[in-house]
This record gives sequence, structure tokens and C-alpha cells, in this order.
Amino acid sequence: MVKQRLLLACPDQPGLVALVTNLLAQAGADIHELDEHAEAGKFAMRIVYSCAASEQDKISLLMHQTSNADWQLRIHAADHKPRVAILCSQEDHCLADLLWRFKAGELSGKPVGIWSTQPLHHHLADAYAVPLHHTPVGDGGMPVHERTLLNQLDGQVDLIILARYMRILSENFLQEADVPVINIHHSFLPAFIGANPYQEAHERGVKLIGATAHYAIPELDAGPIIEQDVVRVAHRQTPEQLRELGRDVERVVLARAVRAHLEDRVVVWDNRTVVFG
Amino acid sequence: MVKQRLLLACPDQPGLVALVTNLLAQAGADIHELDEHAEAGKFAMRIVYSCAASEQDKISLLMHQTSNADWQLRIHAADHKPRVAILCSQEDHCLADLLWRFKAGELSGKPVGIWSTQPLHHHLADAYAVPLHHTPVGDGGMPVHERTLLNQLDGQVDLIILARYMRILSENFLQEADVPVINIHHSFLPAFIGANPYQEAHERGVKLIGATAHYAIPELDAGPIIEQDVVRVAHRQTPEQLRELGRDVERVVLARAVRAHLEDRVVVWDNRTVVFG
Amino acid sequence: MVKQRLLLACPDQPGLVALVTNLLAQAGADIHELDEHAEAGKFAMRIVYSCAASEQDKISLLMHQTSNADWQLRIHAADHKPRVAILCSQEDHCLADLLWRFKAGELSGKPVGIWSTQPLHHHLADAYAVPLHHTPVGDGGMPVHERTLLNQLDGQVDLIILARYMRILSENFLQEADVPVINIHHSFLPAFIGANPYQEAHERGVKLIGATAHYAIPELDAGPIIEQDVVRVAHRQTPEQLRELGRDVERVVLARAVRAHLEDRVVVWDNRTVVFG
Amino acid sequence: MVKQRLLLACPDQPGLVALVTNLLAQAGADIHELDEHAEAGKFAMRIVYSCAASEQDKISLLMHQTSNADWQLRIHAADHKPRVAILCSQEDHCLADLLWRFKAGELSGKPVGIWSTQPLHHHLADAYAVPLHHTPVGDGGMPVHERTLLNQLDGQVDLIILARYMRILSENFLQEADVPVINIHHSFLPAFIGANPYQEAHERGVKLIGATAHYAIPELDAGPIIEQDVVRVAHRQTPEQLRELGRDVERVVLARAVRAHLEDRVVVWDNRTVVFG
Repeated sequence: MVKQRLLLACPDQPGLVALVTNLLAQAGADIHELDEHAEAGKFAMRIVYSCAASEQDKISLLMHQTSNADWQLRIHAADHKPRVAILCSQEDHCLADLLWRFKAGELSGKPVGIWSTQPLHHHLADAYAVPLHHTPVGDGGMPVHERTLLNQLDGQVDLIILARYMRILSENFLQEADVPVINIHHSFLPAFIGANPYQEAHERGVKLIGATAHYAIPELDAGPIIEQDVVRVAHRQTPEQLRELGRDVERVVLARAVRAHLEDRVVVWDNRTVVFG
Repeated sequence: MVKQRLLLACPDQPGLVALVTNLLAQAGADIHELDEHAEAGKFAMRIVYSCAASEQDKISLLMHQTSNADWQLRIHAADHKPRVAILCSQEDHCLADLLWRFKAGELSGKPVGIWSTQPLHHHLADAYAVPLHHTPVGDGGMPVHERTLLNQLDGQVDLIILARYMRILSENFLQEADVPVINIHHSFLPAFIGANPYQEAHERGVKLIGATAHYAIPELDAGPIIEQDVVRVAHRQTPEQLRELGRDVERVVLARAVRAHLEDRVVVWDNRTVVFG
Repeated sequence: MVKQRLLLACPDQPGLVALVTNLLAQAGADIHELDEHAEAGKFAMRIVYSCAASEQDKISLLMHQTSNADWQLRIHAADHKPRVAILCSQEDHCLADLLWRFKAGELSGKPVGIWSTQPLHHHLADAYAVPLHHTPVGDGGMPVHERTLLNQLDGQVDLIILARYMRILSENFLQEADVPVINIHHSFLPAFIGANPYQEAHERGVKLIGATAHYAIPELDAGPIIEQDVVRVAHRQTPEQLRELGRDVERVVLARAVRAHLEDRVVVWDNRTVVFG
Repeated sequence: MVKQRLLLACPDQPGLVALVTNLLAQAGADIHELDEHAEAGKFAMRIVYSCAASEQDKISLLMHQTSNADWQLRIHAADHKPRVAILCSQEDHCLADLLWRFKAGELSGKPVGIWSTQPLHHHLADAYAVPLHHTPVGDGGMPVHERTLLNQLDGQVDLIILARYMRILSENFLQEADVPVINIHHSFLPAFIGANPYQEAHERGVKLIGATAHYAIPELDAGPIIEQDVVRVAHRQTPEQLRELGRDVERVVLARAVRAHLEDRVVVWDNRTVVFG
């Protein structure tokens, strides 16, 4: 028996669950988890099942035959490990955390490289045996930088993680990269969009600070939110202390979002996400 | 079209999801939500669906024909309102909160009466127009008290809520009552079982206090947990202040548990619960 | 011995703590709690102390003699009960919650009346024996409505609570009322300012929704934040369900803010608050 | 000007705050933060202040002259960096996290070494340039192991952190070590004392799992609690998944406790702690 998972997003129509679960039942598959959500004419479903090794290709084939242009369908072995690029700048708390989680097996993926705009992070790259690429933003500015990244990433990765990468990637980059890009923003969006949220949070006197992981889209900090969390703060905290407390939230929020994505738990509907638990 | 929900718990076997969803599909039902969990040979599933009014009895009949002695099956209209008894003693924070929620329609049930061991709570009973029964624990002790309750509740209620009812109900009561009994315990179980958890929490110096809603079983504070939550406390809080802070957690934890039960979201497996979100 | 509390906000200068605590020591007072915060030339301190009943006026006199125009100084008996007006509209979850807390003694104040724009809430007013005033917004619009309120509140209250009062009070009202006004906003400010935050939260797909209690200032939803909290939500929740979940946060956030204010724990600095725990 | 902090725990007596703050005022010190707590005849106070470099020894001397055998007094420069030993076994999530925080300056201390019962963790020791000592528990059992540790730690460290060190240290070790020992326990104490809390949490069906950082005392998992936190779980999580989720809580709870200790924020009263925020 092999363990598989199936993620489907498509226009809603009656009988979809029966259609798919029949197909699985006829292949002798055993369903472990099934979660479904339908809303406003849209349908999403995630199934984890076991089947005989000899049946897995048949299930996949039948599902893809059933599928049509409107369907987004992903079928993966439970131990599927997408290739992941981590982009970062100066700060390394998310980087260190992600590398630890990939090594510990908490994140089901393979980090194929770290791309850093700063000549830093060698000790982490060495400790976790992940290739480090120093890709500064030089005289050519972002266009040259993005071209360098695209050349190196093209076809090599299934996911790009912006682990406190402090540059704004262009619409062109996102299109050419043609893989999902997950960013961690250091505020509870939509509050405090932009570069300096902890300073703004301090000035506004909020009592909680947060972090938001979202898919990057051309519009800054406006992409579909995958995960958010907050931590309580008080008048005592300086902006620098907010930054420190915020790191703890950034780490776990980014890790949870990456995990959900890697385990095929996330469906994007318009600018929102369905995240199956 | 009418909206229904179905909750099924039974031994796991291949094809269960297909079996049920086929049956629904053939009746022209449209599935809005489906959540499933299988573990260690056990299977649980909750489905919310719409169907033609003419089909609802047929679906119910077919499901019950399919069912067998091992199956626990509940099928209810989405607007089904179970009859609820609220038992309480001196403290009224949970009582006031529940009454508000029933009136506001947050809890899908009908409070048929309040049974109080203390001659209190008239203002709340009047405000929310729920009959109040004063059932003190008198010279006859708990046996007589329980008999009084059983006589009044017999066949009249589908759920009993212990809203800070500070007596321990006997195994005999639980059996004769023959409906689920949800209790709110003022600690994060299994820490601080018993009558004085806030004092014990203060002495142990915990940094969070909590509350636990569980189904009552003969063993004290040992029943299947439905919901729990906590709130942060500090050295400053006296036991009395812990009690005040604790009330805020007790209220919402009890309300969430009652809501989950009333909406057919809870399955009991051994001494644990599956609570569909 | 009597128990008192002292809240002081003033420009920072060396020796302020010594100055005040000496004065208390010389009056034989015993300090139970002292919390202090100094930042950017500003100083705030809250002290809870016991002293002989014969000393309390002397302490107060000496402190006021020491004080000058730059100082904000409040000295109250620990059981001081400010007079409170509650303004509301249609929704009554915060109203019911506040009335319960005042009656239970959790909030150290006296609710002198409820002012409602809607002809509702009689059952709550009766249950908690608080006078209810129906003050609709009629043909005269807000100017007439505000004038009515001001006439009734003038000199009668020490605090106004906007318990989901769905109107925007004018700068003129805030000035004439001349007492603090605490509002509960149904979002995690500064996200989702305005009238329909749950709908906006749903559209933006946030994973947490929140509530914010703040002092009202002429600019909408922009006043100094006293307290905030959030609750986790998921793709499953409709805007209506967000509204229900949000009520639980609104209730406790407003209650905590009101409690902090009534216990002289809050100092306003520019547009931020120091809230002593 | 130099920045200092003072932590005092002693029997309560009137005038203590005035006594200390007068002494500081006379030395021209400027108080930035002052937090005080008195309860049941006990007094604790923490002050952060600036003073002329020439005054710091004088303040310290005067305070120690004022002190007596009943007083616990610590005065440190704000940038004081205690020497820290980290003890661990197989699991490295807390180790990796602590090393990162020491390097980033979030924890104000100097890790002088890692002592591991397992021949692991070289990549982390190298990455963060902290000496690694492999101290297995061999044929001689814990007595020999503890003797080895004591020989190496004696006089070299100010704090011992048990970062998921899965052995129980003897009363004799704790006495001879003669420095505070902070342990992280992987449950919300006092629930689930002992070696296998996640399995027990799964069997009991709790809806939150937690972690507790406490000072080690001879009795297992019974020492004064410094910090606790929890994370929400559901029926879906296997014991192994609870372990993964638990790591996120263990990391931050241990780090917060260590930070509080290193910044002289913690006073132990009987078996409870005062932790100044």
C-alpha cells in the first residue's frame, strides 16, 4: 500500500465528492482524511488515501481524464518533496528556522539553495549543507538581480520562499518564475503595509503585533493570506523589542504557511485561500 | 431545497465516503461541507447538504437502512433546535452568557428551563423568559435532589448543561437521564481536578489558567473533552482575580462546546472527541 | 487602614519616584503595588497603597501641592466607583456583558443609565435595574440627538462607554461631554477602519479577526488604543459567522479596557496609552 | 552615564521603595523602569536606572550595606552577560533556537559550552562556535555522568539550561552545581508530569498542548514555573504531530524564561515566581 494525497479545486457541481470517492473506492483505496469546502459556486477538496502501489498510476490517470480545463488537480505521494529556493537578505531568523525544519523533516521539501542579497549566512548554509548563492543587488539594480535569480532558478524549483527578503519582486519576475512565491510580512496585514511595520505599530500603540505569510502578487503585501498570528505587546516595548518579539511570530507563521503549501493543503480562490487543516 | 446535516460514526471500512456521498448524489443533494476523520479502525464524518424537501425523508430512510447496530447516525435539519436544560448553583456568569446566546440565535437550541440549587437567578430567568426551577439540595441529600431533577427532566430535554453546577451527579443520574450532559470545569484539565482549581493554580504558580468543557461521566472531571482554552495570568493576580479572569474563559469554552454539540459536530471515541470545525 | 491608588503622568525628571514614595513613607503608607514607565521625557506611575484613614487627605493634599500644571494626578479610594453611561444601538452583546460585570462587581463603577438609539433592551435594563433612555436619531439628525444626550449626561457621568453605538460622535460632542469616551471597534485596528469590518475581513481573507477598545477622538477609529485581542478564523466562516465570533472578542476587549480605565490604570501619551497591569 | 538594573527580594516593610529610590536619587540616578510586587509579607522590586559611571560602585556599595541576611539583591550592568551551559540529549530544536538567540543578541548571556549525552549536534556547535562536550551516560550511570558534568561546570557557569536534556538530575547535583538550573518540560504543568506527555495528551484528548519552563528542584517537574504557553490542537493530530507542534511552544517558552532570568526579572517565592515584565 502507498499513501497519496489529492487536492482538487474546480467549479462546484452536484456529485463531485461522490464522483471522486467512487473512483477511489473502485480502485480499492482507503480514505484516511477528507476535507471539503464549497462556497459561491466554487469547490475544493483534499483527500489523503492509501492504495495498492499498482493502483496509484491508474487513479492518477482516471482523475486527470475526469478533470478538465477548469480543474486544478494535484496528486502527490505522501512523501513527495518539492524543491524549494530560499531568498533572504540580512536577517536570518526565518532562514535558520526553515533550514532546521527541513532537516528535521517537519517540512516536506528539499531546500535546493539559499539566495542572499548580503554576503552572510555561510555558517547556516554549512551547518545544514544547503548551497549558498550570494546575489547582491548591484549597479544594475533589481532588473539585473532578478535576471540572475531567474537564470539560476529556472526549472530548478517548485516553490520560492521569501524569508525576510527585503526587496520587492517585479510582476515580470513572478510571471517568469512561474512557481508559487511565499512571503512573510512582519505585520498583521492589512495593517501596516510596507517597509517599517514595527515602527508604525509602536507609533499607533497597538497591543498586539503580528506576522502574515502570503503568496506574493505584483501588488505589495496584497497577495492571498495563508497564515497569520500575533503576540501581545505592551507600552514597555520599544520598536526594537517589537522587532525581537515579532521574529518569534514571523518564524512560526512562515513555517506553518510553507508546511501547508508543501502538503497540498492550500487552494487560492480569487485573493483568498482555503487552507485545509 | 432544504438544508440538512448528517453525522456518522462507525467502524472504518473502505468505501464509506463513496457509499454515503453516492446515496446523496442519487437523491440530487448538493454537498456544502464534508469533513471526515478515520483513525485506528474508527470512522467519523459530518456532511452538510441541501436537497429537495421531497427527498429528505428518503435520504434519511436510506441512510438508516444502510446503517447497522455499530453505526451512530444523526440526521437533522439545519435549523433543528434540541431542548436544553441548564443546571446551575450560585454563580451565574455561564448562565447569563448561555441565555444571551440562545436568545441571539448563536446557539441552535431551545432552553426549556433553568434548574438552580440556590434561590437566585430570577432576574435572568425573567429577562430571557425561561422557566426557573428552584431545586435545592435538602435534607434528603443528592439522591432526593437527583430524583427531583430526573422527574422533571425525564423525556423533556435532549441535552443537560451544567453551567457551574457545583454538585457531582451520580452514575445513576447520568444513566437515567439518558441524554448527554456537558459540564464546564474551571481549570485546564487534567490539571487541577476537583473543587478549588483557582486556589491550586495560584499555589502552583501557573502562568496560564484555563477552562475545560467535557461530557460528564461517573468519574469526576474525567469525561471526553470537547473544548478548552486558557488566559495568561501573572504573579500579581490573587486567587480571587484568577476566578474573575477564569470566568471569561469558562463562558466561551462552555458556549463553544454547547454550540459544537448542538450542531452535531461532536463524536465521542472512547474517552476522546472528534470535533468537526 | 484604607486602601488608595494614585496615578501620575507628568514630564520626567530625576527623583520623581523617590519624591512620591518618600511622601507616602512619611505618611506611614504601605505600598502594595507600584508600576512605573518613563520614555522620551515622559513619566507615568501607578501606586496602590494602604494608609491610616486619618492620613489619606493629607497625602492627597501634599500630592496636589507637589503637583503643577504639567501633572495629571488622580488619587482614589480603592473602592471608588465612577458613574458610567452606556450608549448603544441595536446590538446588545456588549451591553449585556457590561451590565453583568457591573452587577458582579468585576467593574468598579456605577452604571447610571443606558442610552439607546433603538427602542430595545428593556429586558436587560429591567434585569439589571439600570435606567434605560430611548434616544433615537430623529429628524433633527445627529446635532439634535447629541444635544439630547449632552443635556442628560451633563455633570452626571465620569465615563461614557460606546457599547456598539453605531453612530459617529462629533468633535463638539466630545468636547462638551468633557469626560473620557471609550469605544469598541469590531476590528483589529488599524486594519478595517469603518462600518463594515467583518465583511472586509472576509474579503481580504484574514486568518484572525479582532476587536479594539480605544478612547474616542474626533478622527474615526483613530483614538488611543487601550486593549485589543483576536480570535482565529478559517475559510469556512461566512461574514455572519465572523460577526458571531467577533462578538466574543468585542465583549472581553471592551470589558478589559473599561476595567483598566475605572481602576486608574490608563495614561494617554500623545495617541498611545500606557496601561499598567 | 551607565545603565544598571537592580533586583531585590526581601521581607516586606514600610518604606522600602522610598529607601531604595532615595538612595538612587541621591546618587543622581535616573529611573527608567520600576516594577514592584508585595504579597503576604514578601517584597520584590526591579529597577532599571542610569547613573554616572562614577556613581555605580557607590550605589552598589550602599545597597549592599543596606541589605541584610534576609535580602536577595542583584545589581548588574544592563549589558551584563552571565555564562551559560546548555545540556541536551537527542533533540536539538531548543538547542538550535537558543544558540541562534545568543548569537543574535536576544539573550543577554554567553554560552560557554554545550554538553550532550549523545554524539550529535556538531553542525550547530560549529555554526555558532560554541564548544561541544560529549558526555554520555555510560556504565557508571548518572552518578559518574553527574560527576563529569560537575567537574567541568564547577565555577565556570552562572546558569545551566536543560534544553530537552532527558535525564533527571539528582538533588546532589543541583546542590553542588550551586547555580540556577532552568528546565523545559514538554507539557502544560501540572498536567502530564513525566517522560511521555504528548502520548498522554493524545490519550486524554486535550484541545491544547503546552510547555513549561521552570527552575529544576529535586522533585521531578515540580519546580517554580517561570513561563508557560500552549498551542491549539485537534483530533486530527497524531502523537507525533503533537510532538512537532509542541516544539514550537517549547522553543519560545524556554527562550522567554531564559531571557527573563538573564535580565534579572525573576524572583522565586516559595515555589512560585514573580516575573517582572
